[in-house]
Amino acid sequence: MNNLDLSLYLVTDRGMSKGRSHEYIVEEAIKGGVSMVQLREKDISSRDFYQLAFSLKQTLVKHQIPLIINDRLDIALAVDADGLHIGQSDLPYNVARQLLGADKIIGLSVETVEQARLANALDVDYIGLSPVFSTLTKSDINTPLGLNGIKEIATFSKHQMVAIGGINKENTADIFRSGAHGVAVVSAIVSHESPFQAAKELRNIIDQL
Amino acid sequence: MNNLDLSLYLVTDRGMSKGRSHEYIVEEAIKGGVSMVQLREKDISSRDFYQLAFSLKQTLVKHQIPLIINDRLDIALAVDADGLHIGQSDLPYNVARQLLGADKIIGLSVETVEQARLANALDVDYIGLSPVFSTLTKSDINTPLGLNGIKEIATFSKHQMVAIGGINKENTADIFRSGAHGVAVVSAIVSHESPFQAAKELRNIIDQL
Repeated sequence: MNNLDLSLYLVTDRGMSKGRSHEYIVEEAIKGGVSMVQLREKDISSRDFYQLAFSLKQTLVKHQIPLIINDRLDIALAVDADGLHIGQSDLPYNVARQLLGADKIIGLSVETVEQARLANALDVDYIGLSPVFSTLTKSDINTPLGLNGIKEIATFSKHQMVAIGGINKENTADIFRSGAHGVAVVSAIVSHESPFQAAKELRNIIDQL
Repeated sequence: MNNLDLSLYLVTDRGMSKGRSHEYIVEEAIKGGVSMVQLREKDISSRDFYQLAFSLKQTLVKHQIPLIINDRLDIALAVDADGLHIGQSDLPYNVARQLLGADKIIGLSVETVEQARLANALDVDYIGLSPVFSTLTKSDINTPLGLNGIKEIATFSKHQMVAIGGINKENTADIFRSGAHGVAVVSAIVSHESPFQAAKELRNIIDQL
């Protein structure tokens, strides 16, 4: 996947979307300039996850924006998503790659500098630095990597890097300047009164770098 | 899958296994006469599910007993399991079949006579009648089908049928006599002091029919 655009990567969260549908949030955020979308669902039946993914795929194909599924390789296969994002507690990377094939995007979360070093042995398409700042979105998180963590990982990582966790208008420029190729955003977009406006503001910051 | 032996089908449940490993329970139950094993896990990371399935696969291959994975098609693919068991809230059957291929076993839970009728349009390898009696194993269950439900479904179903829910030594013979081709057992084996003895007693009942 050569033309991967990680710059403004939306990660969904139904619980933080204030009752608005993924389709609404995603359509608005794409108008605002989101470059990739990850569907992340927990505590949902496989059928419901499949149906959400199927529906979101229709929306994203229209805009030629890649759909990445979090964790669930079966859902990614079932809807022919563009890729899969795996964490350290998900399927091993090699298993996921073998089942998905070489053409799909696979992203891997790394939570420490050591995990980022280990990721250099894998041909993942990107790594997610998680979390870069503290956040309320995920409950099971490690110590934030901070801007210094991004800078350190940028010195040796062979992968494109997207930072996630506590991303907002105030810190986006610094994250890019520290070496990240993108920001993965949850609440700053999905919880915003206007997901369009929220995405547009971040897009403007990124485009001015 | 022509030589499917549903007769004594063990379904795992870590929470009811009194701290004993799946490998222990399954090895003992196979010595007692179990003919198939389903790995059912909820509230577990994909990595842990994968590792449990991988380990159990090694055990089962040795004994030439099929391993069926509950719900998670990705885990089934990842460990090359013999099949997948899906419920009404899991991936749609046609999606699962397309991804798994024609050679794998796919079982489908039906909770009502109407669902059993609809299953006649699908080329599933078996249907699971769930629950046949009331049970504490699953919390989200419908009204039990009872022996009369088995008998009614047996009049029209083109599929092999395994009954699940509240199976024990006292009702196993009646379940077969009502038209089922097998019993799927959870607590009567996994919670028993001797999973070997529990399986053996059920096997003896079945073999004497």
